[in-house]
Amino acid sequence: MTAIDPDRAVRFVLVGTSHPGNIGSAARAMKTMAFRRMALVAPVGDPLDREAMAMAAGADDLIDQAWRGDVLDDALTGCTLVLGSTARRRSVPMPELSPRDAASRVVEELARGGQVALLFGRERTGLENDELQRCHAAIHIPTDVEFSSLNLASAVQVLAYELRVALLQAAAAGRPAEGEEGRDPPATHEQMEGLFQHLDTTLKAIDFHKGRAPDTVMHRLRRLFLRAVPDTREVRILHGILADAERMAMLAGRAQSGGLASE
Amino acid sequence: MTAIDPDRAVRFVLVGTSHPGNIGSAARAMKTMAFRRMALVAPVGDPLDREAMAMAAGADDLIDQAWRGDVLDDALTGCTLVLGSTARRRSVPMPELSPRDAASRVVEELARGGQVALLFGRERTGLENDELQRCHAAIHIPTDVEFSSLNLASAVQVLAYELRVALLQAAAAGRPAEGEEGRDPPATHEQMEGLFQHLDTTLKAIDFHKGRAPDTVMHRLRRLFLRAVPDTREVRILHGILADAERMAMLAGRAQSGGLASE
Repeated sequence: MTAIDPDRAVRFVLVGTSHPGNIGSAARAMKTMAFRRMALVAPVGDPLDREAMAMAAGADDLIDQAWRGDVLDDALTGCTLVLGSTARRRSVPMPELSPRDAASRVVEELARGGQVALLFGRERTGLENDELQRCHAAIHIPTDVEFSSLNLASAVQVLAYELRVALLQAAAAGRPAEGEEGRDPPATHEQMEGLFQHLDTTLKAIDFHKGRAPDTVMHRLRRLFLRAVPDTREVRILHGILADAERMAMLAGRAQSGGLASE
Repeated sequence: MTAIDPDRAVRFVLVGTSHPGNIGSAARAMKTMAFRRMALVAPVGDPLDREAMAMAAGADDLIDQAWRGDVLDDALTGCTLVLGSTARRRSVPMPELSPRDAASRVVEELARGGQVALLFGRERTGLENDELQRCHAAIHIPTDVEFSSLNLASAVQVLAYELRVALLQAAAAGRPAEGEEGRDPPATHEQMEGLFQHLDTTLKAIDFHKGRAPDTVMHRLRRLFLRAVPDTREVRILHGILADAERMAMLAGRAQSGGLASE
């Protein structure tokens, strides 16, 4: 199993980008998901201009180190899998993957030592047909048909995110899952039953039922607390509350019988 | 079976956004994924300014129709599930969901007729602790620890995307997952806050704290009950129990003062 090194093995190729600001935003989107290899094919304007830097918000090192050139094929050198992000296009019949399926395909490719390119086209017109022809498959982000105007950086963000999740899952597949943080050990079955008994006693003590059958309410409460899967500390807190409510009931009862006795 | 209508039933709540341009980008991100309901809590500047319009790129109708106000609770009226987008924060231990798990939780909630709010905090500082306290769970987008500076609109884009994929999958699966049987309508945000207030009063009345700070325990209990996502009937039962415990405390207190008086 080849170690997955997405930093080197996945490149994000931006083709014919018109607005340097979008290159900046795309760099930021990539870097938040731990991807660093950017290629700029025939960008319009200076990819290192002020707006690009502002939008990069600390990811300008990616633009600085980006591959730049005019020929798409040069940007794809060494790639074993090329996927093109595209709005659905019928004129180039080709396999179309969802972002999620694309991500698992990329993970497989990396696992076998491949190099991957993700292609993103122009802001208005996307990738041209001859550019799509270079792709093994197209990736279609499932936008609303009535408003499919996805920002370039948003498309980069969604694919980078899907790919990161797939890589993290692949990496974690060998490792034990972490427990939920900040929680004590989960309550055992016996602890939960102890809680329900205490709850039952308390409800009677505080005269909750007032002649109604206790069963229905106890079933409801069981369901509620079991659903919450309390931890041991939480069960302890609940016991504490019940104990105090019982204490109040005892004092109240004593007062009442005391009151009666004094009458 | 309630039809899923995410357009109405999911609101994206932006809290304290500083840059109108980001509101525009967020609106665009939402609209590409077919979400339209936006709430702006105490935005800085005019959400309809020129930059916001430019960044919205045709999604300005969402901003125009957005709910606006200064109080987060008002923005959450009617919500049965509140999830807060957050960078990992240690100070408020609470359940943390991945975007994917959050999306399936939302789909379940919609299937049982619930209303959902997704909260997004300030550009620099995110959501504050008391805002996170209102959430059933936090959503953490798995950014690179070394560069976690996710743009606000990018966070909106990722969550809106995950949710759209989950909704499309649910729709494609024939019918969405059924709601849990035999449950009443989910409790709203206001009902949960009302419950916590009652709980707070009752704990004081039954002298649960005994000089300790009430905050820690209340945070624990919030977490426990929010995790259980109670329905309206369950909330009513819990109110009933609290009322009886308070009644006992009052009787006990009266007895004690009566007892003292008679001594």
